[in-house]
Amino acid sequence: MPEPDALDLLREIDHVGIAVGDLEQAVDGYRQLFGMEPVHREHVADQGVEEVLFRVGTSYIQLLAATAPDTPVGRFLARRGEGVHHVAYRVNDLADALERLRRGGADLIDEAPRPGSRGTTVAFVHPRSVRGVLVELVQEGPASER
Amino acid sequence: MPEPDALDLLREIDHVGIAVGDLEQAVDGYRQLFGMEPVHREHVADQGVEEVLFRVGTSYIQLLAATAPDTPVGRFLARRGEGVHHVAYRVNDLADALERLRRGGADLIDEAPRPGSRGTTVAFVHPRSVRGVLVELVQEGPASER
Repeated sequence: MPEPDALDLLREIDHVGIAVGDLEQAVDGYRQLFGMEPVHREHVADQGVEEVLFRVGTSYIQLLAATAPDTPVGRFLARRGEGVHHVAYRVNDLADALERLRRGGADLIDEAPRPGSRGTTVAFVHPRSVRGVLVELVQEGPASER
Repeated sequence: MPEPDALDLLREIDHVGIAVGDLEQAVDGYRQLFGMEPVHREHVADQGVEEVLFRVGTSYIQLLAATAPDTPVGRFLARRGEGVHHVAYRVNDLADALERLRRGGADLIDEAPRPGSRGTTVAFVHPRSVRGVLVELVQEGPASER
């Protein structure tokens, strides 16, 4: 198992976000198959999702259901079906991370940090900058004072 | 950050496997964007892939290129383009994990543990059992004596 390096931009995998059609069925499926219990549930109104988290080591599996068809997760499900929607990495300082990515030419969906679930602060990077993977950066706690 | 529970089947996220068209370009992209250096590279002949690993905390990002079009990753790229190909979870005892999943009705791609990269032992679970996500289970080191 690798040891983290204090200088890394990406500290850990925070979660893998999985789009599902029926949240209750999906939660029951994960519970039964892997013997896990959900540790968190939240309705994130501005993203149009209801999410449930399962803990895996220092990371989470995040099951995501759309609250309406005309939402990012709703459109993803219509286009591709259930599956991995995004990968989220924990960073120490999100504003600094965004600045580094912007300087590196990344196409940022969120130009500035914004509130995420669990009281975190988040920003998304466009899949076209990261080999087809929608990437979320997560800083634990609210945005830092700058 | 959550604390692991010794009783959990899934211990940690081992890696997120990302299918890419051009491995050298993808490695350069991750290196430049996130300031990371690869920690491992391996040709896995029986899976028809060349893989490069980047460390993220206790997990890895695995970039996967197909060695030929008529391979699982080659067909994935033709069908869906670059993106997340599978999610791999670390388990303590893979044979035991497979037996638990089989009893739970999971559709196993590998009925028995087999050698993976980095000297690990692995098995894949079909996406139809896990909400559209191809799941790999990884035990560090060679298969246990049973």
